Amino acid sequence: MNGNQDLLQRSLQAVWHPCTQMKHHERTPLLPIARGEGAWLFDSDGKGYLDAVSSWWVNLFGHNQPAIKDAIKAQLDQLEHVMLAGFTHAPVVELSEKLSALTDLGHAFYGSDGASATEIALKMSFHYWRNHGQPHKTRFISLQNSYHGETLGALGVTDVAIFKDTYAPLICQSAQMPSPDSRLAEAGESAEAYALRCAEALEAYVAEHHAELAAFIIEPLVQGAAGMAMYHPLYLRRAREVCSRYAVHLIADEIAVGFGRTGTLFACEQAGGKVSDIADFICLSKGITGGYLPLSAVLTSDQVYQAFYHEQTGKGFLHSHSYTGNPLACSAALATLALFESSDVLGRNQQTAQQLWAAVQAYDLPLQHIRQRGMITAFEVDSGNPHFARDCYAAALRHGLLLRPIGNTVYWMPPYCLEAAEIDHLLQATKTTILETLACS
Amino acid sequence: MNGNQDLLQRSLQAVWHPCTQMKHHERTPLLPIARGEGAWLFDSDGKGYLDAVSSWWVNLFGHNQPAIKDAIKAQLDQLEHVMLAGFTHAPVVELSEKLSALTDLGHAFYGSDGASATEIALKMSFHYWRNHGQPHKTRFISLQNSYHGETLGALGVTDVAIFKDTYAPLICQSAQMPSPDSRLAEAGESAEAYALRCAEALEAYVAEHHAELAAFIIEPLVQGAAGMAMYHPLYLRRAREVCSRYAVHLIADEIAVGFGRTGTLFACEQAGGKVSDIADFICLSKGITGGYLPLSAVLTSDQVYQAFYHEQTGKGFLHSHSYTGNPLACSAALATLALFESSDVLGRNQQTAQQLWAAVQAYDLPLQHIRQRGMITAFEVDSGNPHFARDCYAAALRHGLLLRPIGNTVYWMPPYCLEAAEIDHLLQATKTTILETLACS
Repeated sequence: MNGNQDLLQRSLQAVWHPCTQMKHHERTPLLPIARGEGAWLFDSDGKGYLDAVSSWWVNLFGHNQPAIKDAIKAQLDQLEHVMLAGFTHAPVVELSEKLSALTDLGHAFYGSDGASATEIALKMSFHYWRNHGQPHKTRFISLQNSYHGETLGALGVTDVAIFKDTYAPLICQSAQMPSPDSRLAEAGESAEAYALRCAEALEAYVAEHHAELAAFIIEPLVQGAAGMAMYHPLYLRRAREVCSRYAVHLIADEIAVGFGRTGTLFACEQAGGKVSDIADFICLSKGITGGYLPLSAVLTSDQVYQAFYHEQTGKGFLHSHSYTGNPLACSAALATLALFESSDVLGRNQQTAQQLWAAVQAYDLPLQHIRQRGMITAFEVDSGNPHFARDCYAAALRHGLLLRPIGNTVYWMPPYCLEAAEIDHLLQATKTTILETLACS
Repeated sequence: MNGNQDLLQRSLQAVWHPCTQMKHHERTPLLPIARGEGAWLFDSDGKGYLDAVSSWWVNLFGHNQPAIKDAIKAQLDQLEHVMLAGFTHAPVVELSEKLSALTDLGHAFYGSDGASATEIALKMSFHYWRNHGQPHKTRFISLQNSYHGETLGALGVTDVAIFKDTYAPLICQSAQMPSPDSRLAEAGESAEAYALRCAEALEAYVAEHHAELAAFIIEPLVQGAAGMAMYHPLYLRRAREVCSRYAVHLIADEIAVGFGRTGTLFACEQAGGKVSDIADFICLSKGITGGYLPLSAVLTSDQVYQAFYHEQTGKGFLHSHSYTGNPLACSAALATLALFESSDVLGRNQQTAQQLWAAVQAYDLPLQHIRQRGMITAFEVDSGNPHFARDCYAAALRHGLLLRPIGNTVYWMPPYCLEAAEIDHLLQATKTTILETLACS
């Protein structure tokens, strides 16, 4: 038995893998990874796989990234952890200051899971209205096909049936607004016109229900789990106007799209201005530590913060997680932000994105809805194979590539460190994979 | 301005601290910590504080612990992270195998926040009954004054008013059973007799409602946030019998009490036998990484696991977090478990606990309900000062000690590495602190 076989059998016996029907691993390969280097993951037998999904959208600057690694090691020699209630430390202060400067929002509140960030933002918004004398504002709205995490509060605003429907009896339901996903535009309708039409539908709903609405939570520009659904930035601007007009918070869930993924440091910026011009709250996680350690954060406006600042304990936001503001995770985040400062990451990404865009346009393959937003490129493959995603995933692995299609949507969301030869491999292996998957189905 | 003053002002400007009414920091000190060493935390001016609450109950073997630190550094040179859907790696497999061997439960599912572990266990239990053809079993029960986390699903089974009441409109409520907290026994009633009386009340409720009950979630032996409420282990055995008789899952939330804290590796063991003899699910977090990194895990029985193992995707447990099974956190957990294997930690803790017990009994102070379970020692201080907790906390810091009373309950929950001189400091500084707090109120 080789190294891979041994570890994968043991894993199937001992580990319950996330987002997985475990029985499917009887035919779909489970792959043991021994080490990473740059954009590559290597299995126990030394075979390499280009990590074209950044390990679930978390990795920014590649695996085994020297600067982030060294920052964590240095922090390990200083202070690994101290509780953040009553205490503080330099990494969490510096990170909070930097995040505040970058978003123009303030007072960072921390968790570790992305879902926890959603929960924190929902609770904060609800509690703000209560402290503000509007306790009837208790409901939330989100977009159709949105994903905001899978703890029960986060599921309440998530709209992916396979993750949510089973748990309906445990969930406080929210209302879903039409998604501005430009794939849904009518024939001849531009993405912009369709976004405006969706914004009108949003306004109609909010105008009727605002008295009971606390917040609208949204994934800015790209709805990841919906299949990299992309939409026109104008929708965000209109949504902001609607929220302001009717006194409803806008929560920007940038867990997946933050930290340069969509071409700007934060996706909200593409609607014009700073994050604070669009959002009352921003949720961050995934790329915040460069893909090294679990960390999530919520930042909000001073107005929201002030509404909790009161002599009465119960008016405070008493939420907590044991590892809130963990110094090791904060040091990884600081090193990640420093990488953005030390070189023109977004400019380099723009070049990479242009190469990917040109190449995918030239593919002689049955593709639809080819789309791109910064370092996310996606398209639908015209295939009637009901197991397209599974088969494509398995074929890609055979060709040294980690793709993880969502239905018939193939997407690239690679680390920002791709070199020319790696771009060539990504393009060639994807093409071969799709041809092979189409031929075998 | 000295180092402490500068950092604390910046922290108040930039960080929203957990479990804190921020306005109270206008008079209560916020303390910047620069480094840790063993049981000690040191502020930016070099002053040391004995960490008698293990930084919110997470630290086991002290700060700057060489073996855990080296394990994380070694893993940093190997593989910092890979997604766990479709992939696996040695640290997560080895950790899962070890946790399974220690609990006799299997198939570890991972998150990062403790609250996420609660959410995972609740969702799994609910989903099990649904897969098992009993979809009407949708409700949960927990103990009065229980704490299981503050995401909305976890709040549904938490019963601490200050954390929960505000969010009532967002929560699916559960029913609370009488707490076996031995402080609540009637005059002349033993802790054991009171526990049995509470178990009878539990049975009466379950007998009537079992058809709609999915699970009973409980903190075994010690309800931490309730003020270190301790109860007789017999309650757990009876609760297990009741749950078995009426086909209701028992979820053991050992997030705070696991990993040796109560004198056995897991608290459930004190009810006789293995964890699996008491619990269908166990939730773990906090001490699992020795206090280094956020990691949480849920293990369950093979029977539960098998009910999800099916051709149909929707019968699988599709929950996920991006950093599920993070290799760095798993390596910290493996190093922590290795420390239990390499020396008689529980035996040493027993000696420490005996010294603390003897000393607190000899205190000439107005104390009530002096109690101990392994490395948790607690007592109530007879004081009418409504700000006792705040004043005692501040006084302790002045004496180089981190205490964090809950109401009038003072507790010690120190790292396992306390040396003789540190025990002396803990005892002396606690006594001085209490005397001072009583005198000033």
